[in-house]
Amino acid sequence: MSGFSDVAAFEAALRALPAPDERAMAEARARQAELTKPSGSLGRLEEIAVFMAGWQGTARPSAQRIRAALFAGNHGVTARGVSAFPSEVTAQMVANFRAGGAAINALADLCGAQLSVIPLDVDRPTGDIVTEPAMCEADCLAALNVGAAQVSSDAQLMFVGEMGIGNTTPAAALCAQAFGGHAGIWCGRGSGVDDAGAARKVAAVSAALALHGQDCTGPFETLRRLGGREIAAMAGAILAARIQRVPVLLDGFICCAAVAPLVAANPAFTDHCLAAHRSAEGGHARLLAHFGLEPLLQLEMRLGEGSGAAVAVHLVRAALATHNTMATFAEAAVAGAP
Amino acid sequence: MSGFSDVAAFEAALRALPAPDERAMAEARARQAELTKPSGSLGRLEEIAVFMAGWQGTARPSAQRIRAALFAGNHGVTARGVSAFPSEVTAQMVANFRAGGAAINALADLCGAQLSVIPLDVDRPTGDIVTEPAMCEADCLAALNVGAAQVSSDAQLMFVGEMGIGNTTPAAALCAQAFGGHAGIWCGRGSGVDDAGAARKVAAVSAALALHGQDCTGPFETLRRLGGREIAAMAGAILAARIQRVPVLLDGFICCAAVAPLVAANPAFTDHCLAAHRSAEGGHARLLAHFGLEPLLQLEMRLGEGSGAAVAVHLVRAALATHNTMATFAEAAVAGAP
Repeated sequence: MSGFSDVAAFEAALRALPAPDERAMAEARARQAELTKPSGSLGRLEEIAVFMAGWQGTARPSAQRIRAALFAGNHGVTARGVSAFPSEVTAQMVANFRAGGAAINALADLCGAQLSVIPLDVDRPTGDIVTEPAMCEADCLAALNVGAAQVSSDAQLMFVGEMGIGNTTPAAALCAQAFGGHAGIWCGRGSGVDDAGAARKVAAVSAALALHGQDCTGPFETLRRLGGREIAAMAGAILAARIQRVPVLLDGFICCAAVAPLVAANPAFTDHCLAAHRSAEGGHARLLAHFGLEPLLQLEMRLGEGSGAAVAVHLVRAALATHNTMATFAEAAVAGAP
Repeated sequence: MSGFSDVAAFEAALRALPAPDERAMAEARARQAELTKPSGSLGRLEEIAVFMAGWQGTARPSAQRIRAALFAGNHGVTARGVSAFPSEVTAQMVANFRAGGAAINALADLCGAQLSVIPLDVDRPTGDIVTEPAMCEADCLAALNVGAAQVSSDAQLMFVGEMGIGNTTPAAALCAQAFGGHAGIWCGRGSGVDDAGAARKVAAVSAALALHGQDCTGPFETLRRLGGREIAAMAGAILAARIQRVPVLLDGFICCAAVAPLVAANPAFTDHCLAAHRSAEGGHARLLAHFGLEPLLQLEMRLGEGSGAAVAVHLVRAALATHNTMATFAEAAVAGAP
């Protein structure tokens, strides 16, 4: 879609979120009750089918056309030694994504998602959030719009992923700003930082919150000060998906942290989202609880890239395969429960 | 495979279980450490790849050829009103499976499994376990061998499913006999029985245990007295898979109850198995704990038919897609962790 013309347009969109199609959901529920299985016996697969019906506006939803966008960015705060990997790895991994060698390439292929790789000024890290805002207003708005541009209304399902050395640090800051709690409860080991690095990370998040907290007066300002380009792009994409009624599979900690300021501003924001998985990164479970979402998968994954969402696509497909192709009790001449 | 010539051959096979290929597992672990991702960041997907390597005897395992067998049987104990559905539904559902209208048809198609539907004397229910053994020796051995015959050594992964109105009742009896505890802790609502039916079910399991407990001197005798034909077929298939080193995705409560007597006799029995999911049927979580297995999925499914296993196939595929196709740090010229 064309994106947000200015900050006011972004925040207005967040206040005027469309709702799912209740009629399609009711029809999907009625169909589930007639399929040849004990009522409720497909568990969360039944919920997924009804959810997809609501956002696609049809009792027979589909997940054939799946959009995936992978955003990459670098972070000034990495100079403080908050990550196990050097910042150069972000660009190296972008090359790996383009060559098809990363986990998300294998997983997007397997689930049939159309994957785009979008580096955002990887050679120009954001400001160090300990001493300055991550982005100026124009940069943050541009990043939101890069994300929004990746959404097409003919997608039947979407997910976004990220790569950005050090990005669990701004993500932790976004969570703490959105939902409170001291820095330590939102900071995990990221890609595997050691004890000393973990302590530096907590210190950096604490300092960033002390510096910016009072100025984080709304979701845009929070993203701009504490986020990053790939993070803002994810937020822009997921909001644009909502506007176009495209259901979204949320990936792990960074993806959810990207929308944390949006959820804090409007708790209905995640209504078009399924939580694909619960990451091993500790803050993620806490964040999903704030969102009121139960993760579909709990596989101790913590890679990012959209990898958890790509795996969960298969659960959506399983839900829709059963929903759309099973026979009803009447069609199969099977006796229902009394 | 040709099956078990007699009871002694079945129990001897259970004592002489093959082990996985440790060399292939070590090679798979070494490969995982070189792939372009933080170490361990694919979580349980990494474990699955190593598990598959061990049973296929290669560092690059595959899950293209997937066998699925769905066994159906009827149970004399249903005359006691232990199920929400009448026994006639078993044969009606067999027709539905053959016509392609059931959940497992949709899910097996989606995951590319080759599905066989095998009714075992559906018009001849087993004995009522409250008053007599479920099967005579010949019937039980025949059922084990029907299961074993479904395994082919060229399968790269297998799962088994079941349909049998009332079969959570013998399943609960098998669990209680194998791992102890009173009947009530192993009895759930099955396909949705009401309070009165649930009480009848607990009473039936208690009575069956009182009648047969002392005579359940080994896994065969336990299956014969307390099980059922489709249950014995599942046990035979999963043991035959072990003998042929075919890894198995265990489905839900009935599938796991079928092998409970085998696990009680030899705790290494489940080494070739992954627990596909944790069923909403309460006894299943308890049973998986006895097996020492963590379920891959927790989707509140409770349908049987192999439906949970069919969904988990996609997780195995995701594990192997990443394991086999990702670039190494060296291949992609990405800097590893220090």
